[in-house]
Amino acid sequence: MKTKRNIVHLPVYQPGKPVEDVKRELGLTEVIKLASNENPYGSSPSAKQAIIAEIDNSSIYPDGASVELTAAMAQHLGVHPNQLIWGNGADEIILMLARAYLEPGDETVMADETFSQYRHNAEVENAVLKEIPLIDGRQDLPAMLAAVTDKTKLIWVCSPNNPTGTIVTEAELVEFMDKLPGHVLCVLDEAYCHFVDDPEYPDSIKLLERYPNLILLRTFSKIYGLAALRIGYGIAQPDVIHSINLVREPFNTARVAQAAAKAALGDQEFVSSCRENNLQQRDYLQGEFARLGLSYYPTQANFIMVDVGMPSREAFDLLLRRGFITRAGWAKSPTYLRVSIGTAEANRKFISALEEVLKEAAVRQ
Amino acid sequence: MKTKRNIVHLPVYQPGKPVEDVKRELGLTEVIKLASNENPYGSSPSAKQAIIAEIDNSSIYPDGASVELTAAMAQHLGVHPNQLIWGNGADEIILMLARAYLEPGDETVMADETFSQYRHNAEVENAVLKEIPLIDGRQDLPAMLAAVTDKTKLIWVCSPNNPTGTIVTEAELVEFMDKLPGHVLCVLDEAYCHFVDDPEYPDSIKLLERYPNLILLRTFSKIYGLAALRIGYGIAQPDVIHSINLVREPFNTARVAQAAAKAALGDQEFVSSCRENNLQQRDYLQGEFARLGLSYYPTQANFIMVDVGMPSREAFDLLLRRGFITRAGWAKSPTYLRVSIGTAEANRKFISALEEVLKEAAVRQ
Repeated sequence: MKTKRNIVHLPVYQPGKPVEDVKRELGLTEVIKLASNENPYGSSPSAKQAIIAEIDNSSIYPDGASVELTAAMAQHLGVHPNQLIWGNGADEIILMLARAYLEPGDETVMADETFSQYRHNAEVENAVLKEIPLIDGRQDLPAMLAAVTDKTKLIWVCSPNNPTGTIVTEAELVEFMDKLPGHVLCVLDEAYCHFVDDPEYPDSIKLLERYPNLILLRTFSKIYGLAALRIGYGIAQPDVIHSINLVREPFNTARVAQAAAKAALGDQEFVSSCRENNLQQRDYLQGEFARLGLSYYPTQANFIMVDVGMPSREAFDLLLRRGFITRAGWAKSPTYLRVSIGTAEANRKFISALEEVLKEAAVRQ
Repeated sequence: MKTKRNIVHLPVYQPGKPVEDVKRELGLTEVIKLASNENPYGSSPSAKQAIIAEIDNSSIYPDGASVELTAAMAQHLGVHPNQLIWGNGADEIILMLARAYLEPGDETVMADETFSQYRHNAEVENAVLKEIPLIDGRQDLPAMLAAVTDKTKLIWVCSPNNPTGTIVTEAELVEFMDKLPGHVLCVLDEAYCHFVDDPEYPDSIKLLERYPNLILLRTFSKIYGLAALRIGYGIAQPDVIHSINLVREPFNTARVAQAAAKAALGDQEFVSSCRENNLQQRDYLQGEFARLGLSYYPTQANFIMVDVGMPSREAFDLLLRRGFITRAGWAKSPTYLRVSIGTAEANRKFISALEEVLKEAAVRQ
């Protein structure tokens, strides 16, 4: 048996430790996870009711076409239902895009660093990666554009960018798309779009009409607080959606995921409240980082990438012992931690722990 | 933009009509779906409780490694945890196998007819298909073996076979595996294994030690009644599991799916009861088909493929108007319907409707 040669070097996903394990191993009574950009306010009560309402349908396959959810989302966004596709998380849309468009030897362009699944899926398809360094935590669209060749099939833009939280402005995006050759599909990943308050952030739905080679990715895992259920979506012109449907599994999203997403979409009050809380807490954390003399990338998302001035894996360990799970190990940014923005209480405690860690590190030097 | 050339001809999945739509369009008060081999007895109450217990965790990503579910299943089956992999339905294990092993031009062998997703995923990977006709509804293992070449990577055996319900015996499987070259991975899809009562059916778990190039696929969608949640699994030696993990998405199974599957696994009483009911109703339906002079493939699953002696799409339509959704359109078996085995009441009503349809067809001739 031989697996594909191009996948044997790929890293196998190493799951983060469950909160319960960290508690037990380190003898802690409280552990706060600020590692996965989850919604610290949970999810809408409507979504929970929708899950319960589906319990007696557990033996029945989901609606493979997600008709009801699609109709609700089409109305919410003002697009046609055939402009939408659903995935087992936006992750699966990324997988399907790679699988539908990339042949061995095809080229694909993305930032370095950005969300890891673009690279992972491109590698599985044996595509040639062109990774363009960030400038000050921002994607360098002119350099990404310059990396496009006749062989380029997909170009990935993440806005807000994971892990840096920076956005691509409307002016930048329009200039980029105007120059992008029509044979390249631009995947604009807007998983964190609901947290943005920068007025320069594009209304990308409106741009879909102008650019047939643009697809937007969004998710219910972040502001809607449904990460556990795995549901995300893509928005594009119908022919792009059709192409992705060619490789989609018939029942790729769960019945409860469809139902909960539809209910969650109907509770925009919950969304607004999470958004307001996140903006307040973002300002709090950024203020505290400034007070502590730490530089960070000003974020438009529900996480902040902060330079802790020491190897981030070391800071990760020191914080873990104090009951805080963060995200370290960014190859290009070895002294940066990515910290999810939590509740007011979690953030206050985190800052206090971080201060201790910084003092401890200063003493040791 | 150009999708991969090898996928453009693929059929886009056409979802079956929801029961509610059929009711409205045809003015029916009752519609019985015998089309998707779902569990007509629902799912275990323990599974439902497990779903409710997870409701307040909806915003938290699932455990990507499914540690608890894996431990429970490893114990249940008597295998090591590293012999297990979980998918978003067994469908996703099929996808991952194709993605991990098949390169363009590689060959893959399967029956014609069998479960459609083997072919679909092989076509997405641009593999060369070798489809070996069934003999009397049974997979022709010697002919499948004869189709193996140096380029063959995967061979798919479905037992009980979907759509015919026939099994591969232990003697047949052992002879086949003994002769199968080590460079070919045999995927033995046992989605319907729990319904089998033929003593010749292999204890395939025991065969895993002898054959490092064997993987078993199973699911919680059938006897466990959790089709809505999408969770299936593969069992193999650790290096095969490792290879599949290389292409697995980090969070491919939902939190509720893992929790419900673990709870369902703990309720073997529910499983036994569904199994007994299915065997009784299988015998009832087979007896009725015999009484009506219809031939069928003796089944070991929770569905029966029956020759209705007229174009099956026509029979499908006539049954639909009477409130029964079945499955027609088998290319190689144009007069066969696949009918899921329902509850006693559903089956009795179905037979009555089928008798009417057969009389109506006889009058028209």
